[in-house]
Amino acid sequence: MKVDGIAYRTIWLDEDGWSVRIIDQTKLPHRFVVTRLTSLAEAAHAIRAMLVRGAPLIGATAAYGLALALRADPSDAGLETAAATLMATRPTAVNLRWGIERVRARVQPLAPAERAAAAYDEAAVIADEDAAICRSIGEHGAALIRAAAERKGPGEPVNILTHCNAGWLATVDWGTALAPVFVAFEQGIPLHVWVDETRPRNQGASLTAWELVKHGVPHTVIADNAGGHLMQHGRVDLCIVGTDRTTADGDVCNKIGTYLKALAAHDNGVPFYVALPSPTIDWRIHDGVREIPIEERDGREVSELTGLTGDGRIETIRVTPDGSPVANPAFDVTPARYVTALITERGVCAASPGGLLALFPERAAVGV
Amino acid sequence: MKVDGIAYRTIWLDEDGWSVRIIDQTKLPHRFVVTRLTSLAEAAHAIRAMLVRGAPLIGATAAYGLALALRADPSDAGLETAAATLMATRPTAVNLRWGIERVRARVQPLAPAERAAAAYDEAAVIADEDAAICRSIGEHGAALIRAAAERKGPGEPVNILTHCNAGWLATVDWGTALAPVFVAFEQGIPLHVWVDETRPRNQGASLTAWELVKHGVPHTVIADNAGGHLMQHGRVDLCIVGTDRTTADGDVCNKIGTYLKALAAHDNGVPFYVALPSPTIDWRIHDGVREIPIEERDGREVSELTGLTGDGRIETIRVTPDGSPVANPAFDVTPARYVTALITERGVCAASPGGLLALFPERAAVGV
Repeated sequence: MKVDGIAYRTIWLDEDGWSVRIIDQTKLPHRFVVTRLTSLAEAAHAIRAMLVRGAPLIGATAAYGLALALRADPSDAGLETAAATLMATRPTAVNLRWGIERVRARVQPLAPAERAAAAYDEAAVIADEDAAICRSIGEHGAALIRAAAERKGPGEPVNILTHCNAGWLATVDWGTALAPVFVAFEQGIPLHVWVDETRPRNQGASLTAWELVKHGVPHTVIADNAGGHLMQHGRVDLCIVGTDRTTADGDVCNKIGTYLKALAAHDNGVPFYVALPSPTIDWRIHDGVREIPIEERDGREVSELTGLTGDGRIETIRVTPDGSPVANPAFDVTPARYVTALITERGVCAASPGGLLALFPERAAVGV
Repeated sequence: MKVDGIAYRTIWLDEDGWSVRIIDQTKLPHRFVVTRLTSLAEAAHAIRAMLVRGAPLIGATAAYGLALALRADPSDAGLETAAATLMATRPTAVNLRWGIERVRARVQPLAPAERAAAAYDEAAVIADEDAAICRSIGEHGAALIRAAAERKGPGEPVNILTHCNAGWLATVDWGTALAPVFVAFEQGIPLHVWVDETRPRNQGASLTAWELVKHGVPHTVIADNAGGHLMQHGRVDLCIVGTDRTTADGDVCNKIGTYLKALAAHDNGVPFYVALPSPTIDWRIHDGVREIPIEERDGREVSELTGLTGDGRIETIRVTPDGSPVANPAFDVTPARYVTALITERGVCAASPGGLLALFPERAAVGV
């Protein structure tokens, strides 16, 4: 998407034809810094230190990381070391393993001299495929926004609430929850986005707001506490959020606080949509509240915040009193009964076993 | 309540017999500063600049402010100027007017020479009455906590979730929502408090957590987003919050985000209690969502935070990108259907017209 009028992806091949460019997301929203990756070590660091984040982008970065590694050492041993190094960066990221395995499967049968070029090619395909999947989610979701627009007065914006950052920064391009917003905006549908701050890591206030302000999409940042009030007063037409993991029954595990917004949407008759690329569906599990373990993260994410001082310095401050314990569950599960529909790259479906199997009939054949 | 083992109120007469001591709440939670008020101007500043906050404490401070003013100028003109000065500090605070009117009614009939002493006496009565009302709310609410404790295993703590700060800092002593916690703690009931951070002004993370850590009550600070997840997993036994305004039908207007917690409590079968001194009941209105105007506050409360740096400085940082608009509705309304019961100084009642009138039958006589 655009940054001040110039189109970007989150990862791309440098014009030198071999090094890899990424946006250093740890500097956002206060600095826009493009960084160059020239080695396996730099790619691994970029994933580990979260210069890149979001499952699809991590997968693409790992793929390019293997290409950089094979450029330096295309031997079997070099391939194994590189794969192991990248795999260790974020142990629980499903797309990380998937991106590495895909490149490895492509290059392993080849002579060492051919491996680096093939890895670059596979990484580019992975990136393009992700952009295409997200664009497709965007088109299906934009149809829902268009339908909402048709129920409003002419020129009246559709008010869309989102939580966390499931925007283009979390993918290669377009995003998941924000893809419908970007596509609808491109189509000229009048819209406005309520951006949940998303404590404790503030991905809404920092990343989603940054994406929207840089692309020129009308939006307003709000405290996470505000969404229910806005819905009570008819100021939200629909919600769209992302998901880290979706069960075969349509329960969605997403950033902590998503469940509270879904409850408020339900209470006020506001449609609550969840956008997802189909690989995030975990067909083996059904009851998300019972079956999905929730990561408990460092309490300092709650007690400390980092931001920009009035005179332009980046500072970290503590907001809790000395001695107060902090808990920090990072995700919650929204039961399928509060999800109006799922938006996938194949189309929109009910958040139910039947809804999902109708879009993914190949899963019915294998008995899940 | 106690600060590191020493009992405090939020306002008290200095041992010199005339100046007034308050806790400067703008310095909390990082500094505990007791300030001395010696004049009308200082009392007015303390209210205006929110060194004191919370309706009951504002009322008591205004009463003492009149006493300080009358000590300097007990004439009719002096009384009128002082009342007008104090009234202008926080124009919408109901208790402010009430405290001023009560002292004025007491001193106006007196000879100027007798006024200051009478004003000090009335201010002390106001403060004592408020402490007694809050203590009574605490006793009624503690019975609910005790009942919850009896449903748990021996020694297993009752987990209580609260939002914002309705603690002793907002009153003269004990608080409203926290009064049941302090009384139950005093009675030896094992308990633990989940403290909602309460963005954007962070009164939970700063004031409620400070009260609890200083009094020695077990607690954990959480992001506002976390409460629903904790309730889904049985980790909250009951919620207690305060209210700024309660309708005759039992709708409660409290700090933004209260409604989301009430929805989650309802969805998970967790009792949701609202503690209030009866003067916060507005008997003239019924439908809180439709009838209560919600204050929209400065967006900088969302985009900027103040806290303590690692090396002990107080800094303010911005967390949103340059150019992103911010909205900041300060309160929301929780419909009575999501409120399990109201805890008042007269006892516990259903959040309904019948429930309220059973406790306040004098209101039925006047036809509201």
